[in-house]
Amino acid sequence: MTRVGIIGGTGYAGGELARILCTHPDVEIAAMTSRQNAGAKVQDVHTYLRGYVDLCFTEKISETDDLDLVFVATPHGVAMKEVPALLEKGIKAIDLSGDYRLHDVDVYSKWYGHEHTDVENLQKAVYGLPEFFRDEIKGADLVANPGCYATSVILACGPLLKSGLVGDDVIVDAKSGTSGAGMVPSQRLHHPTCGESVIPYSIGTHRHTPEIEMAVDRFAGSRSKVTFVPNLVPIVRGIISSCYFDLKGDVTQEEVDAVYEAQYGKERFVHYVPDPSIRAVVASNHAQTASRVIGRKAVAFGVIDNLVKGASGQAVQCMNLMLGLDEGTGLNLPGLGV
Amino acid sequence: MTRVGIIGGTGYAGGELARILCTHPDVEIAAMTSRQNAGAKVQDVHTYLRGYVDLCFTEKISETDDLDLVFVATPHGVAMKEVPALLEKGIKAIDLSGDYRLHDVDVYSKWYGHEHTDVENLQKAVYGLPEFFRDEIKGADLVANPGCYATSVILACGPLLKSGLVGDDVIVDAKSGTSGAGMVPSQRLHHPTCGESVIPYSIGTHRHTPEIEMAVDRFAGSRSKVTFVPNLVPIVRGIISSCYFDLKGDVTQEEVDAVYEAQYGKERFVHYVPDPSIRAVVASNHAQTASRVIGRKAVAFGVIDNLVKGASGQAVQCMNLMLGLDEGTGLNLPGLGV
Amino acid sequence: MTRVGIIGGTGYAGGELARILCTHPDVEIAAMTSRQNAGAKVQDVHTYLRGYVDLCFTEKISETDDLDLVFVATPHGVAMKEVPALLEKGIKAIDLSGDYRLHDVDVYSKWYGHEHTDVENLQKAVYGLPEFFRDEIKGADLVANPGCYATSVILACGPLLKSGLVGDDVIVDAKSGTSGAGMVPSQRLHHPTCGESVIPYSIGTHRHTPEIEMAVDRFAGSRSKVTFVPNLVPIVRGIISSCYFDLKGDVTQEEVDAVYEAQYGKERFVHYVPDPSIRAVVASNHAQTASRVIGRKAVAFGVIDNLVKGASGQAVQCMNLMLGLDEGTGLNLPGLGV
Amino acid sequence: MTRVGIIGGTGYAGGELARILCTHPDVEIAAMTSRQNAGAKVQDVHTYLRGYVDLCFTEKISETDDLDLVFVATPHGVAMKEVPALLEKGIKAIDLSGDYRLHDVDVYSKWYGHEHTDVENLQKAVYGLPEFFRDEIKGADLVANPGCYATSVILACGPLLKSGLVGDDVIVDAKSGTSGAGMVPSQRLHHPTCGESVIPYSIGTHRHTPEIEMAVDRFAGSRSKVTFVPNLVPIVRGIISSCYFDLKGDVTQEEVDAVYEAQYGKERFVHYVPDPSIRAVVASNHAQTASRVIGRKAVAFGVIDNLVKGASGQAVQCMNLMLGLDEGTGLNLPGLGV
Repeated sequence: MTRVGIIGGTGYAGGELARILCTHPDVEIAAMTSRQNAGAKVQDVHTYLRGYVDLCFTEKISETDDLDLVFVATPHGVAMKEVPALLEKGIKAIDLSGDYRLHDVDVYSKWYGHEHTDVENLQKAVYGLPEFFRDEIKGADLVANPGCYATSVILACGPLLKSGLVGDDVIVDAKSGTSGAGMVPSQRLHHPTCGESVIPYSIGTHRHTPEIEMAVDRFAGSRSKVTFVPNLVPIVRGIISSCYFDLKGDVTQEEVDAVYEAQYGKERFVHYVPDPSIRAVVASNHAQTASRVIGRKAVAFGVIDNLVKGASGQAVQCMNLMLGLDEGTGLNLPGLGV
Repeated sequence: MTRVGIIGGTGYAGGELARILCTHPDVEIAAMTSRQNAGAKVQDVHTYLRGYVDLCFTEKISETDDLDLVFVATPHGVAMKEVPALLEKGIKAIDLSGDYRLHDVDVYSKWYGHEHTDVENLQKAVYGLPEFFRDEIKGADLVANPGCYATSVILACGPLLKSGLVGDDVIVDAKSGTSGAGMVPSQRLHHPTCGESVIPYSIGTHRHTPEIEMAVDRFAGSRSKVTFVPNLVPIVRGIISSCYFDLKGDVTQEEVDAVYEAQYGKERFVHYVPDPSIRAVVASNHAQTASRVIGRKAVAFGVIDNLVKGASGQAVQCMNLMLGLDEGTGLNLPGLGV
Repeated sequence: MTRVGIIGGTGYAGGELARILCTHPDVEIAAMTSRQNAGAKVQDVHTYLRGYVDLCFTEKISETDDLDLVFVATPHGVAMKEVPALLEKGIKAIDLSGDYRLHDVDVYSKWYGHEHTDVENLQKAVYGLPEFFRDEIKGADLVANPGCYATSVILACGPLLKSGLVGDDVIVDAKSGTSGAGMVPSQRLHHPTCGESVIPYSIGTHRHTPEIEMAVDRFAGSRSKVTFVPNLVPIVRGIISSCYFDLKGDVTQEEVDAVYEAQYGKERFVHYVPDPSIRAVVASNHAQTASRVIGRKAVAFGVIDNLVKGASGQAVQCMNLMLGLDEGTGLNLPGLGV
Repeated sequence: MTRVGIIGGTGYAGGELARILCTHPDVEIAAMTSRQNAGAKVQDVHTYLRGYVDLCFTEKISETDDLDLVFVATPHGVAMKEVPALLEKGIKAIDLSGDYRLHDVDVYSKWYGHEHTDVENLQKAVYGLPEFFRDEIKGADLVANPGCYATSVILACGPLLKSGLVGDDVIVDAKSGTSGAGMVPSQRLHHPTCGESVIPYSIGTHRHTPEIEMAVDRFAGSRSKVTFVPNLVPIVRGIISSCYFDLKGDVTQEEVDAVYEAQYGKERFVHYVPDPSIRAVVASNHAQTASRVIGRKAVAFGVIDNLVKGASGQAVQCMNLMLGLDEGTGLNLPGLGV
């Protein structure tokens, strides 16, 4: 059994990691840390884990935990303080925050508002989107797990951008459930505020913008421009990102379909479908994509559960690759549907 | 024009008072106070009031406001510090908090956890439920506006308890929208927590319990026992309280119907209906009641918009009575329906 | 008192018309028709109207109703059978369906799938968006009330398109509450289907597309292209439409702001705000618009209550203009806020 | 591999059975029937099953399906026409409808409105609530899977009723998510109707009443009376039932806790907790119970996912017992939590 740890076990991503890992046949959760809940039983904090996780939160991971791999599920800025020590000890790491996603330190400091203190590992980190970077992930010691919005957008846009059928300008109108904002209460996430509303926010300024642009650049082979507007919608889990493109000349729906089929036809977790649905993927690591030609434009949709394929499920998928396991181990479950 | 003030204008009840009063033909909002927003325009804080309220929040009300009546919409414990000075100056007051609802100071300190510092006015305060205490309200200088849960429960139970058809034990299972909890974010009101759940809370310990018991005692003429379990449901506005009784002997549905018809047949805002519906009353000062005989039990329902008939609308209804105006002035609007 | 009738009084738009008109000081609801509910009391069907509308549904309007103006709130295809007779009798008409919105009969038959049978009146009908066509509405006998999506989009886009600051390609990603789909149950509107999802539908094929294009053409003075993707979101009331443009050259936020201020600065019901919010306008005839420059793109938002400014409220606003009344009569109420 | 069939595979319970069974290690879904979708691929109807169920719906099960066990997930009245033939062929059956739950045919015909046509098997059917009737289920050929409300109520009430600490009068105020009402659209389940409301229905007349009474009688050893009021709440999955009792004399919280600990301390799927939460059990076969003493009353809560422990998960749990497998096979997954 591989021994894994979770740094930052109190938040939604940390709890979701434990939810997925506790039934994984090849790994054992050996440690979960939490500043605010150190000493408490994990299943008293995450009551849905009763009977599944028999562990107490600790302040920090320790030598005696004897860990092989650590998930870092902390706020931005914390991971880059934790990761160097892990790697030095030969412990593989998967960071679920934004700390290792942007390879350009200037872009990082511009969008995150502070300097990056671990430039060395930043260069080595592999972007953990298996459907596009599978081979790199297999050999990685440090994986930067993609953001939830970025995952949905890149899965939706990647095939079209790579195909050359569309221009390199992308408009993204994304809709996210509220769990994407994390567990800390705020005015925007207060039920009377958001419960019967749709709230656009961080208009043109969201931190997933450069992350999406970086991926788009790799696919499109040019300096593409992403206009990204996220919206909060009153559902708990799920993201649907709608991505708009200009078609280069006359492109048929059949050509577009062929591009996606070629990309995702053999993927286990990403599907190209006529009818994308959040409920079809909720509670699972599956993603659905769809794309439609509308005159001289195309719209592409990317649908995920933000906490699974958009965070902890994808992190486990990366872990499987890093450990040489079958990629879907512990993740082969369908979405809820209803 | 009567000049009214609102102490505590930032919260939901304060904003709702302004929303209702700004189209009232006989009063003028002359002052709104707010500690956190003093100096800001009311319509920049409550953006739905743009074009309706042209006023800035002040730290405190002042002599120059020249007020005739003041609504106190502050947290529990604050009103009893504000009210004595108002009454001394001859300003009528309507308190929307719990400070003046319980006439017994020992009951107050037991449930609210601190001493009452204005015992004198506590004795004089009139409980502001017009459908039961209309005449007292007309002559009052100080009205204690009922709690939202208490309003829905008393409207549901009052006729049956007064009728003598039921025992004096009442079980209340109430369901409230999230705006009832106020505007301060918390873990329970965080959308991911409550958005797809029903959460019983303050089981047997909610502060509206003694308020309901006090009213029930007046109706039933005995020391009745109220078992009160409130539940948070993922809607923004609205309460439905389901109240269960033991019938004394054989009682028919027709007898029960007659009791409610006699009580509410001529009321403008409280209706006895076959099909109570939150949407039928939302955004209005209307309440719906219903009652059904089930074998040897009866269930009575009380349905209101917690912010209108359950708070600010009822306060304006009381104000109208205190000022000698027609009771429905500024409140004669139907619910939304959809 | 002007005597008005409502043809199609059972649906959401018909009920909402009655809700607004029942407190209007200058008109009287003299007749409401309903095939399925003929003979029933209006307030037994729309229970929120108890005490406000004392009328029974009739099968048809009749001579003895002595009507001055009729609202037609029926499904598409029905209004064009009702309107000719009304106009012949000198009764003004406001059609809330799509029958009289598109002046080109070929465009109509293409999008609605049947021929238009009242071409003569189609040419005369005035598009009922007061903020852009106020003078025409004043003199009209027949007003085509805009669609809910179209209202939100045109209010958002109109100023920018007229300004010449943007290209004539518009991408619209609109999010609507479920009441916009009407009262007839369907699989998509079934709560388990839509309650925790966001569902794009009629992608590129929605009937409001040509309506938006017609308006955009008038503003932009060219054959503009609208890419319209509506989404169903799990809220009951409200629309927010997000409209994306290419800026022509360098345009500052200040220039954009000035364009909207010039257009809406003196409007009673349409506001240009920094923070558009569905809750700020819900239950009212108010609309909010906002616009942001993001690099070489701009996004404009239009926010309304789909049943009020998006349907029945706007129809009453048009009625006021047609009758020579103050435009806001019966509509001067703020949104709910919470 | 045991070969199982699902009669009625289109509905929510049928789809949920397939969702659970498709990852079960010891059984194979060999047939799914559907009248309306016969011939269609299961994964085209239930899109969340893409990649998990490679089967087409058939009109009927056939000899060549070679089934060992069949789940009947049809509307009431259909199962009793299907079950006799299954049992004759030696195929075990689990009925998810109400057809085999009530052993008294008169009670059945009174509540379901038609005669029971399979009285013989009705007598043999075992009520499939493993936590109370485990041994009977192990030896059964026909299991009547409990209703969703009944499951939540019996789990909540069983320990207290068996303990003798409470009277035999139970008031049940239950709140259910909308998926409990099935997949057929209706006015009550239409999102604009129920999306911002709480709707009591079938007040005192719901068909789970006699089912609950039957169970309560077995526990309490007397003719108990159940007052059952179900409420529709705007969540998709989940039930919380609040059950109120009179305590016999002075009973402490500790005594009540001990009763539940004794009953559920060793159960895998039913837990006694301080803080029952729908989200903690959603998407899992787990149930949570809680109980509180309030003066001379007690309230007990039962919380489940209505489609899992309240339907298809419990049916699989029964299947495991009937097949001699470990009871939790294929069901050992925690709830979502968030």
